[in-house]
Amino acid sequence: MRTVVGVMGAGDEASPSDITLAERLGEAVAREGWVLLTGGRPAGVMAGAIRGANRVSGSLTVSILPSKGGPVAPGTDIAVFTGLGEARNVINVLSCHVVITCGAVSAGTTSEAAFALKFKKPLVLLAPQSEAVTFFKSLSSSVSVAATPEQAISAARHFLRSEESAP
Amino acid sequence: MRTVVGVMGAGDEASPSDITLAERLGEAVAREGWVLLTGGRPAGVMAGAIRGANRVSGSLTVSILPSKGGPVAPGTDIAVFTGLGEARNVINVLSCHVVITCGAVSAGTTSEAAFALKFKKPLVLLAPQSEAVTFFKSLSSSVSVAATPEQAISAARHFLRSEESAP
Amino acid sequence: MRTVVGVMGAGDEASPSDITLAERLGEAVAREGWVLLTGGRPAGVMAGAIRGANRVSGSLTVSILPSKGGPVAPGTDIAVFTGLGEARNVINVLSCHVVITCGAVSAGTTSEAAFALKFKKPLVLLAPQSEAVTFFKSLSSSVSVAATPEQAISAARHFLRSEESAP
Amino acid sequence: MRTVVGVMGAGDEASPSDITLAERLGEAVAREGWVLLTGGRPAGVMAGAIRGANRVSGSLTVSILPSKGGPVAPGTDIAVFTGLGEARNVINVLSCHVVITCGAVSAGTTSEAAFALKFKKPLVLLAPQSEAVTFFKSLSSSVSVAATPEQAISAARHFLRSEESAP
Repeated sequence: MRTVVGVMGAGDEASPSDITLAERLGEAVAREGWVLLTGGRPAGVMAGAIRGANRVSGSLTVSILPSKGGPVAPGTDIAVFTGLGEARNVINVLSCHVVITCGAVSAGTTSEAAFALKFKKPLVLLAPQSEAVTFFKSLSSSVSVAATPEQAISAARHFLRSEESAP
Repeated sequence: MRTVVGVMGAGDEASPSDITLAERLGEAVAREGWVLLTGGRPAGVMAGAIRGANRVSGSLTVSILPSKGGPVAPGTDIAVFTGLGEARNVINVLSCHVVITCGAVSAGTTSEAAFALKFKKPLVLLAPQSEAVTFFKSLSSSVSVAATPEQAISAARHFLRSEESAP
Repeated sequence: MRTVVGVMGAGDEASPSDITLAERLGEAVAREGWVLLTGGRPAGVMAGAIRGANRVSGSLTVSILPSKGGPVAPGTDIAVFTGLGEARNVINVLSCHVVITCGAVSAGTTSEAAFALKFKKPLVLLAPQSEAVTFFKSLSSSVSVAATPEQAISAARHFLRSEESAP
Repeated sequence: MRTVVGVMGAGDEASPSDITLAERLGEAVAREGWVLLTGGRPAGVMAGAIRGANRVSGSLTVSILPSKGGPVAPGTDIAVFTGLGEARNVINVLSCHVVITCGAVSAGTTSEAAFALKFKKPLVLLAPQSEAVTFFKSLSSSVSVAATPEQAISAARHFLRSEESAP
């Protein structure tokens, strides 16, 4: 079974710098040989991360879509259509070994970060706003914060290694 | 169609004071003639709010459960079993006219507050920790904060009135 | 906790005679003092059953909607918006003490009858096509078939009584 | 985006001959270069189809699980954990280009066949019981019935070709 790392972030409201970060992060996830999982819509952080992963030969991208069909982020290999709307955020989190939020944490991404804590999934916040750091750190001592994609990957690697060595 | 107000909060980790607040809030919701909607598990804020509502004759309580069956908070009138686990949090939010979180905002409740913002549902935070106030106010200018159940009800009334008068 | 009986059937493709049956069945469910649960869309069997229940004073109707909001069958008391599309069919079944399909069993209703068998919920087929009878009886020996709303109610009563007496 | 073909069938109640069929079918799906999608539990038709696909080098198997985690059919490449119980059947169907049921159509598989018709997805019944053929053919004129895995693949190919040539 492949290691799956999720990149979560804003769609239409994502800033240009969040999208650039997402591209670098998606590329770095793929370089590790991890499957990239996103919410799969053709917008913002989701589309950016997939674009990044596509620069790596042999990359594999899985998109968990809120819709029953229709538009998907270009470069998606496997489209999982749920028809569940935002309830699919639960699936995004449950299906990842590590969850990385990318850029400013929006309302939708907040739900995913919250589910990550609820389900005891490793959570890395890449370049979040400071209010998000303070809040999520107040909820759990195991939240990791990264300033760059490289730091986020390093935190993810750390989480994955400790999982493997778990009894 | 009845007006439905949701009370969301921690289950097993709820503090005694959060539970006392929930009882007062549930009672106050029922006194307004509103249907009380909760996550319906026999624990914490959910159970407390229903207990409070049950003190009011003619109250109606709807429980949206994560399970396929089994234990339900005592005093539940209508049990909606979803079998969806935490994905049922989306339903809690979509089915309310106003969402009130009660007490310290836990990870599960964070997902519900986040969905409330995502779906543009009126959101009242009753007695939250300060980190939650700062964070949710950074996400949306329309979050309301209340110190007492009475203030929460008053905020909910305000939201309901402005909805009615909307064009 | 109230006894909840579900009436499932076609929406836009329901025939006039299926809708007439649904009205009689919804009325009969309400007369028993049972809560009527349907898929809640303003169409076909769902709308008909609710219309029937509304003729009974003190009736209570719960609509489990596929949508995030919007149109609901008139006469609905409690609207539960799921935003899950057809996945809400699972909730319809899990939340009922007895499931009654009304009229010709369409594709959507087939999924609900199938879930009823899967979840070991009492299932009554009211006025189904003969192919449906043969098929569902081949899946389970406990399927009940009714020719009239009165027979369906009588079968539901029988199921509810045996549940109560279960150890 | 990859072509995804779903193989649906019984879990624990699958007969030995249904499982043998599933192995042959899974292998044949993989040989076509299609991604194999199943419900992913380590039982019956799901496990058999994945075992078959694993005989083909370069195969890719996606498992859409009802659970939040835990056991997965061996040979699964991508595990999508939904935590939704049987509601994940909707996702199975929405995410496939063609749905093939394998062996005797059980209650769970009936829900998937019903959703396939509801969502206008191509549906092939491989080696079903005769009651299922009669019933599903009464619901839709576009159901295809196959006696062997080869016939099922040929029907799937036909559906995929007509989709591509659609305007």
